Amino acid sequence: MSKPKGFEKPAGVRDYLPYAVERLRAIERSVLDCMSGWGYRQIMTPTMEYYDTVGVASSTSDQKLFKLLNNRGTTMVLRSDMTAPIARVVSSLLKEEPLPIRLSYHANVYRAIEEEAGRESEFFQTGVELVGDDSPEADAEVVALAVASLQAAGVSTFKIALGHVGFLNGLLEEAVPGDEEAREGLKQGLLRRDYVGYREALTKLNVSEAQKEELKGILRLRGGKEVCSEARGLSQSQLAQDSIDHLCKVWEALEDYGVAEHVLIDLTMIGDFSYYTGLIFEGYAAELGFPVCSGGRYNNLLQQFGRPVPATGFALKTNRILDGVDGIKAVQKLPVLVQYNAQGRKSALQEAARLRREGKVVVTQHVNAEGELRTVEETAGKYADVVSFVK
Amino acid sequence: MSKPKGFEKPAGVRDYLPYAVERLRAIERSVLDCMSGWGYRQIMTPTMEYYDTVGVASSTSDQKLFKLLNNRGTTMVLRSDMTAPIARVVSSLLKEEPLPIRLSYHANVYRAIEEEAGRESEFFQTGVELVGDDSPEADAEVVALAVASLQAAGVSTFKIALGHVGFLNGLLEEAVPGDEEAREGLKQGLLRRDYVGYREALTKLNVSEAQKEELKGILRLRGGKEVCSEARGLSQSQLAQDSIDHLCKVWEALEDYGVAEHVLIDLTMIGDFSYYTGLIFEGYAAELGFPVCSGGRYNNLLQQFGRPVPATGFALKTNRILDGVDGIKAVQKLPVLVQYNAQGRKSALQEAARLRREGKVVVTQHVNAEGELRTVEETAGKYADVVSFVK
Repeated sequence: MSKPKGFEKPAGVRDYLPYAVERLRAIERSVLDCMSGWGYRQIMTPTMEYYDTVGVASSTSDQKLFKLLNNRGTTMVLRSDMTAPIARVVSSLLKEEPLPIRLSYHANVYRAIEEEAGRESEFFQTGVELVGDDSPEADAEVVALAVASLQAAGVSTFKIALGHVGFLNGLLEEAVPGDEEAREGLKQGLLRRDYVGYREALTKLNVSEAQKEELKGILRLRGGKEVCSEARGLSQSQLAQDSIDHLCKVWEALEDYGVAEHVLIDLTMIGDFSYYTGLIFEGYAAELGFPVCSGGRYNNLLQQFGRPVPATGFALKTNRILDGVDGIKAVQKLPVLVQYNAQGRKSALQEAARLRREGKVVVTQHVNAEGELRTVEETAGKYADVVSFVK
Repeated sequence: MSKPKGFEKPAGVRDYLPYAVERLRAIERSVLDCMSGWGYRQIMTPTMEYYDTVGVASSTSDQKLFKLLNNRGTTMVLRSDMTAPIARVVSSLLKEEPLPIRLSYHANVYRAIEEEAGRESEFFQTGVELVGDDSPEADAEVVALAVASLQAAGVSTFKIALGHVGFLNGLLEEAVPGDEEAREGLKQGLLRRDYVGYREALTKLNVSEAQKEELKGILRLRGGKEVCSEARGLSQSQLAQDSIDHLCKVWEALEDYGVAEHVLIDLTMIGDFSYYTGLIFEGYAAELGFPVCSGGRYNNLLQQFGRPVPATGFALKTNRILDGVDGIKAVQKLPVLVQYNAQGRKSALQEAARLRREGKVVVTQHVNAEGELRTVEETAGKYADVVSFVK
């Protein structure tokens, strides 16, 4: 294999030039400030974690984890999300902290062969975790905060689709009780949103025509609050019924939050993380064909780290918002150019310091000859002003 | 080897709990704002770089680089500084950008077995690079900005020691012309600040007593501007003389910047990065026994990436400032607790939204029974106010 050339960087990773950094920073600041207003305090965790703990708990498939060895020969991973590292911290450094715990983060995460995120293998997520509250109100708080966070990130038109892991599990267990493989096949079709494939899989199932109609009915379970009553009629499973009850309560709380216009129900959603146990949701921006945020309840993850408490949370897919939504623009302050020769230097530097104290951006430049002096006209659009100290 | 326990994280890496994050973020924001005021625009680069390009150019010793393979089998490193990645970007994405180029960054970098930085293998640096200006004024600008940045980071009492790679090289080549090994031995003594060892190494040298006195004289070359004239008397080497002339010019420019009180000359400094070619400097805080910033000129690094232009820069050792200097405190806003039952929910959530619009931090909490209601007195110091909506 040929060596990489000097100026090359690895595939799937990215340089952010100043204008992109300014926009990314503006989104980061605005979203974190919003989360802070809801009482979520920011946390930071290391890039590297143990494979056997956070790596395994992270729910990212093994071949998508970046692995490396530390100098003791232990396998480490670059974090692939922030939910598992935060579960570790809540179970260790914060184990005496009373519940509920509200935490926020803005962090880069790493996934090899990342196809979902436009083939980026390093990208930013901005999110929260609400630990220790299992109520519908907690689920609603996190969804309502996702709405506020998307707005803070400059996403103006979007919908958040709510689903429930329990509904589909209950319904499928009832309909295809003995056949784990068939259930997995149906779930995979839904996960890939391959509804044609889902219908085909249904025809091959060894169940009654009535049950097939029921299972086909899932595909209609997308819309407003009315979907809840439709869903209730579709399954007698206790798990499915309880899940719908919970979803209804979340919806009602979201009405009290005044954000129901941003929400819809999609019971075909099954969530892309295996650790989800309850309400799940995904946010779609009008401009974009893929989710800009995703989240859900994960009540069994923290016990892997030794603190068996329920939790829920979400993450904005910050890079997708940066690249796909024009909402937040960076305001670049044009600098003032202060140019000077040896005799004018002291006065020039004093003037530069004075202008900076006024909040101006100032670039200073020594010139050796009259011909090097520049005018505002020559530097069109590059400087707000040009000041000369040449004696 | 035993598996790590669920709650464990790798050695040498760190979790930042909310209070530490708030302080780190305050330092980051203040320093980046300062750099922005001087016309330095922020850049971000990926965590992973090719070993053969940035890894080799980075001047971090091989065993201190974290290495991993990408899915094509190419060796990558976690960046060990930001100077080499920025040199890559200036030579690729920014290769058409006119000089000088001013860039800033705040980034985490990675070094295995990091002993200098309190054994942390992941830590933050906040710094700048000034590319394309070889003048003493450019060196002075970067030193003056280091002074301003340390002040912005809350470091109140500090000194920046200036040295010059050329002076020591010129003087040693003149004194011990044929003996590379002897020169390296003397340099190592200076690098480790082992002046006893340096004197011992001198006694074994095969040079005249007068020359030994000259070489011993280096150890006296620490102080104010007067050190320049002392140094001039110590060596006839053209390289050494030119270096001192340059250093004098930088000092004079720093007087015009009004920061000479923060600066001293230390010609025993040889710089810890092999890519330095000219002026080098280190900042020491009064409270701490190790540098809180370091920088210097590296005129040969960019040609490795295909753009042969001079450059200079520095980085604050942000973690050392966070841990060692009390200057910047985080101001934590105590939240308002808004508690509600089912009947009071809608009013409670409306009031929470109103308080957030006023800039307050608000935590909402549903209560199921009268006994769960909390008062300000019970939650002493945890909430700024407690408001109840229970009907």
